[in-house]
Amino acid sequence: MSRKNTQVLLAARPTGWVTEECFRVVEVDAPAPDDGEVLVENRWLSLDPYMRGRMNDAKSYAAKVELGAPMVGSTVGVVLESRAPASSGLAPGDWVVGAFGWQSLGVARPTALRKVDVARVPPQAYLGVVGMPGVTAFVGLYDLAEPKEGETVVVSAASGAVGSVVGQLAKLRGARAVGIAGGREKCDWAVRELGFDACVDHRAPDFEAQLAAATPGGIDVDFENVGGPVMDAIFKRLNPFARVSLCGLVSQYNATAPYGVTNFHQLLVNRVQLQGFIVSDHLDRWPEALATLGRLVGEGKLKWRESIAEGLAAAPRAFIGMLRGENLGKQLVRIGA
Amino acid sequence: MSRKNTQVLLAARPTGWVTEECFRVVEVDAPAPDDGEVLVENRWLSLDPYMRGRMNDAKSYAAKVELGAPMVGSTVGVVLESRAPASSGLAPGDWVVGAFGWQSLGVARPTALRKVDVARVPPQAYLGVVGMPGVTAFVGLYDLAEPKEGETVVVSAASGAVGSVVGQLAKLRGARAVGIAGGREKCDWAVRELGFDACVDHRAPDFEAQLAAATPGGIDVDFENVGGPVMDAIFKRLNPFARVSLCGLVSQYNATAPYGVTNFHQLLVNRVQLQGFIVSDHLDRWPEALATLGRLVGEGKLKWRESIAEGLAAAPRAFIGMLRGENLGKQLVRIGA
Repeated sequence: MSRKNTQVLLAARPTGWVTEECFRVVEVDAPAPDDGEVLVENRWLSLDPYMRGRMNDAKSYAAKVELGAPMVGSTVGVVLESRAPASSGLAPGDWVVGAFGWQSLGVARPTALRKVDVARVPPQAYLGVVGMPGVTAFVGLYDLAEPKEGETVVVSAASGAVGSVVGQLAKLRGARAVGIAGGREKCDWAVRELGFDACVDHRAPDFEAQLAAATPGGIDVDFENVGGPVMDAIFKRLNPFARVSLCGLVSQYNATAPYGVTNFHQLLVNRVQLQGFIVSDHLDRWPEALATLGRLVGEGKLKWRESIAEGLAAAPRAFIGMLRGENLGKQLVRIGA
Repeated sequence: MSRKNTQVLLAARPTGWVTEECFRVVEVDAPAPDDGEVLVENRWLSLDPYMRGRMNDAKSYAAKVELGAPMVGSTVGVVLESRAPASSGLAPGDWVVGAFGWQSLGVARPTALRKVDVARVPPQAYLGVVGMPGVTAFVGLYDLAEPKEGETVVVSAASGAVGSVVGQLAKLRGARAVGIAGGREKCDWAVRELGFDACVDHRAPDFEAQLAAATPGGIDVDFENVGGPVMDAIFKRLNPFARVSLCGLVSQYNATAPYGVTNFHQLLVNRVQLQGFIVSDHLDRWPEALATLGRLVGEGKLKWRESIAEGLAAAPRAFIGMLRGENLGKQLVRIGA
C-alpha cells in the first residue's frame, strides 16, 4: 500500500492580506511510524486566526512556520497503525486530537495526542467547543476576567468559535452577554440560538449608538478578539474596574500599518485590568475546562455551529475567508478519507 | 484678628493646554472652625499631574473642580486653632497633611487629616516621597507589577515625584532600573544621585536606539506615567509576561486629539498584564507603604529633590511648567506664612 500524505505548505510569506498564493498543496509519501509512535489519519483540521501570526517572519507567541513547511494546526483523526506499547492506551481505530498541521497523515508519540470519545460529541467538536477555542473562552472569561452576576460582558467576533462560547459562559454566570459581529445573520444567531442578550453589527453606520443602547450600564468585561475601531468603541464604555481579556486582534493581523488605539486612556481613568493571554500558557487549566465544557455540551447548555470546507485544497481559501469574517461558527476543514 | 485666606480658583476650563487665565487668585475671609473642627494654616501645596484631569468638564477618576471653586490638592500645614476634642490628638502647633486644595487656610475634622512628625523628615516630604507620590510608586511597583531580582523596570517621568521613587524602589528589589526623562540634567540626576542603571532622554533624536541599548534584555515592568510615543517605544521592547502599571498619561492631558497607540498588539503577543490604577483606590496599603517609605528615608536609602514655587500666586505658572516637564523632582508651592 503506497498511501499518500496531502500537505498544505507555506509557500510565501504574506505582505498584508494573505492570498492563496501563499500556500502550496502537495502530495508526499505517507510517513512511517517509528518504534513508540502511531500513524494518524486526520479527518478534521481546525482553522484559527492565530495561524496568521505564524506566517510572518517576526517574533510572536510561538515559532513561525518555515517556508516550505506544512502550516501548523490542530487536527482530529483516527489511529491507523500503532507501534506504541499497549500501555499507551492507543490502538487502531481510536480517535485522537493532535497538532499535525495542515496535512492528512501524521506520526506522533501517544503523549503528544489526546484520545477523545466520539460517542459523546462529534469528533470535530474537539477542535471547537470542547477544544482549544472552548478552553480559550473558559480561561479568558472565567479565570482572567471573572464576570460577576449582573455585570455586562462584551465579546467581539461573537459568532466565532471562541466568541460564541464566551457569550454562553457569561450567561451561565448570570452576566449580561453582548456580542459584536459582522452582519445581521451572525448577530441574529447569537441572540436567537445562543441566548446573547444583544448583538451589535459593527458594520452598521450607527454601530457606536447601537453598542451604547446594548450596554446601558456600561461594560464590565471586554473579551477582546478583534481590536481596531471596534475595540476603541468598547473602551469608551468601560466601567471603573473593568477587565479586558485580550485574546486576539484579528482586525490587525493583515494590516500593513497598525491601527492607533485612541481610547487607551480609558484603561487609566477606569483603573482597568487588561491581560493579554494565549491559552497554551494555561495548560494546567485545560483538564477542568474540558471537563466543564464537555458536561455543558452533554447537558445541551452549549451550542455551536460549524463552517466546513471540503478537502485540504480548500483550506487556504477557507482560512482567508475566516480572517475576513465570512464563516459562521467554528471554521473546519473536512479532510477526505 | 481678621485673617485672610488666599485661594486659587478655577476661573475657566482649559481647551488643550492650560493657561494662567484658567486660574484666579483671590483673598477671602478666613474660615472659622465649627465645633469638632480645626483651623489649619497650609504651609506647602503639592502640585500633581492628576489635577489637570479635574479641570475638565468630563468623567475622570474623581469629581471635577467646579468653576469658581478652589483647585483641589494636598497640603501640609500647622493647626492654628482647635475646636476638636483632645481625644482627636490634634492641638495647635501640630503639623497635618490635608486635602485643603490651593488655599492658605482650611478647616476640617481631625479624621480628614493626618498628623505628621516633622522632626523625622521635613514637612513638605509628606507631600512627596513619604506622601501620595511615594505611596503611588510603592503600590504601583511592588503591589501591582511585582518586579523580581534581575528584571528590568522602566519608568517614564523618571525624575518626577513618583518616577524618582519608582526607580529607587526597583533597585532595592534588585531589579535593573531604567528611567526615561526629558533632558540631560534630569537623566544625569537619576543615574548619579538616585542610582538608576540608565536614564534615556526621550528628546534625543535616537531615543529608541538609546532605549534599546539601555534595556538589552528587554523590559519586564513598565511603570507608565507619560503615554504617547514614549510608551509606544516601551511597548515595543516588552518581554513575555511583562507587567504595565498604568499610573499616568501626562503627555495626553493637554492634548486636543488623543495619540493613537500603535504597539498595542505587543500586549497580546507578550501576554502582558496591564493595570490602570489610582492610589486612592488602595487606601488599605497606605499605612504599610508610608511606614516603609519613612523607614527608607530615615536610613538614607531614598533621595528626592524639590522644585519650589514661592507663594500661591505662583502656583498656576508652576503647575503649567510641571505639565511641560520643567520641574526636577517634586513640584511644591511654599505658601507664605
